[in-house]
Amino acid sequence: MKINGKDYRSLWFEDGRLIMIDQRKLPFELSFYEAKTLDDVVFAIKEMVVRGAPAIGCAAAYGLAMVSERELDLAIEKLSKTRPTAYDLFFALNYVKEQVEMGKDPLDAAEDYTNRIVERCRKIGEYGERLIPDNARILTHCNAGALATVDYGTALSPMRVAKEKGKGMFVYVDETRPRMQGLLTAWELKQEGIDHVFIPDNAAGYYMSRGEIDLVIVGADRIAKNGDFANKIGTYEKAVLAKENEIPFYVAAPLSTFDRSIERGDEIVIEERSEKEVREIRGAKVVPDWVEVRNPSFDITPFRYVTAFITEYGIFKPDEIDKLINFKL
Amino acid sequence: MKINGKDYRSLWFEDGRLIMIDQRKLPFELSFYEAKTLDDVVFAIKEMVVRGAPAIGCAAAYGLAMVSERELDLAIEKLSKTRPTAYDLFFALNYVKEQVEMGKDPLDAAEDYTNRIVERCRKIGEYGERLIPDNARILTHCNAGALATVDYGTALSPMRVAKEKGKGMFVYVDETRPRMQGLLTAWELKQEGIDHVFIPDNAAGYYMSRGEIDLVIVGADRIAKNGDFANKIGTYEKAVLAKENEIPFYVAAPLSTFDRSIERGDEIVIEERSEKEVREIRGAKVVPDWVEVRNPSFDITPFRYVTAFITEYGIFKPDEIDKLINFKL
Repeated sequence: MKINGKDYRSLWFEDGRLIMIDQRKLPFELSFYEAKTLDDVVFAIKEMVVRGAPAIGCAAAYGLAMVSERELDLAIEKLSKTRPTAYDLFFALNYVKEQVEMGKDPLDAAEDYTNRIVERCRKIGEYGERLIPDNARILTHCNAGALATVDYGTALSPMRVAKEKGKGMFVYVDETRPRMQGLLTAWELKQEGIDHVFIPDNAAGYYMSRGEIDLVIVGADRIAKNGDFANKIGTYEKAVLAKENEIPFYVAAPLSTFDRSIERGDEIVIEERSEKEVREIRGAKVVPDWVEVRNPSFDITPFRYVTAFITEYGIFKPDEIDKLINFKL
Repeated sequence: MKINGKDYRSLWFEDGRLIMIDQRKLPFELSFYEAKTLDDVVFAIKEMVVRGAPAIGCAAAYGLAMVSERELDLAIEKLSKTRPTAYDLFFALNYVKEQVEMGKDPLDAAEDYTNRIVERCRKIGEYGERLIPDNARILTHCNAGALATVDYGTALSPMRVAKEKGKGMFVYVDETRPRMQGLLTAWELKQEGIDHVFIPDNAAGYYMSRGEIDLVIVGADRIAKNGDFANKIGTYEKAVLAKENEIPFYVAAPLSTFDRSIERGDEIVIEERSEKEVREIRGAKVVPDWVEVRNPSFDITPFRYVTAFITEYGIFKPDEIDKLINFKL
């Protein structure tokens, strides 16, 4: 990813520390969080210093490189409890464990895992770019960019490749209350020089109904075998609206997001996060204490709303994703 | 409406001044804005000291009582330009003008107009209450309560009557970004002792898809002859989601919101409000200056998503609203 014209990853390992762009502070401030211990990594994932299913997986993989081999199982247990919805987390932990059991150094396994994810996100961009017509008007929800995936992104990767190929584009960026990850997306698109506008979540349907959106691309946190998927709260709303307005709705995700142990979306655990995310924005209290609040962090979108999944192995319709079962990382 | 157990209207005329609950400050602070001149009223409507189509109509009517008869046309022109989407505004101005032309005192006409609106909202409650089963779980968007209509409300009036009749209820209140009028609704429901919870707009579809919402009731700012209607941005999204989940979707509004001069919703002017509403919440900057923002304030929901309109004349399906053409205020 570009930051002020320089190449970056959203996290990397250096001198025994995992360095992460602190996503709690963007887009107001670019700063870095240094995790020196496993507990620092656990904190970073829980508190969303690092976020986005693929990036969470990579951070967790590096977390395992910070403990001795006899502490590995306990570390896996601790990390497993950080964010229950993101499947990449479990996929990554399992990958590193398998590699270590086969005699590989945990840090090498984590580096290897992360490099593969980055490379796969680049491929998602190459396949997905073909779905973006020149001068397309695209809606995206939350942030499924380089920040969420170490580099390239899932939903944003096809846009980045389309830009490289000289295509014009205009991106509608959903605010994504409560945590407003749309700001992260706006920040990334600005860094990449892609035209965009930030809109309240309530306005996405308005622009769809007026024929001002040609396609929707989102990321995913976990995808069931039938194609039902979990993603940031509000994704389901956009999917239903896209279908109603006959707008293609694409889900971009690497193999690590496909949970081949569950048949349907209703088996996915939905994380409820702190009410504070709704009550406070940048330290300002926006909802008084006496107002009762709920904050489900994800929703499930049934496969029938998905036009296709954009993966590193190509484009798959929901009824074709069982083909992915044969692939390995 | 009850405020700390005492009966109130959201605005009233006293000693030559129009006194309004200052809705910009609720629910954090209960304070009153006193308009002493027509320009004060214009300011109050534009800046949303007073908001909600029926209440805007009443405030405008009182505004005409603050000028001499020869200034009436100029005052009507000024008031007409405050909020272009709310039809009640134009309906009220026309009503007072007609009454004055027939020799009535403008203040009497404004009082008469306001009393009629309040009485009609009460009737909306009586008709609408029949649509609410005991222990219903209801979704509402924005604020269509007493604050928005001087008393009783449109969407909230049926809930208030249901409560009086001893029915149980649970209300999901959409936050309603950018201005978060859901907070006004939460405040009103608390005053009336109705159970509720405040949710991000993104979560409404989630609760619908889980079968946790039995019906939706919203207000309206303008309704075309075919039943297409304008309401707060995000209403269209909730309407589409309700249809997809086979949940009844009701629109509560008095005669003054039905614009019998337009055939379809696409003739309704959509107000774009200041970007500042998206950028700042309670004085805190939540979106940086370099992010381009859009802020359409209303959307149009086509009639096919409306189960029925709840009016002071009873319940009408979209294809029955031409019957309302025979009624007068």
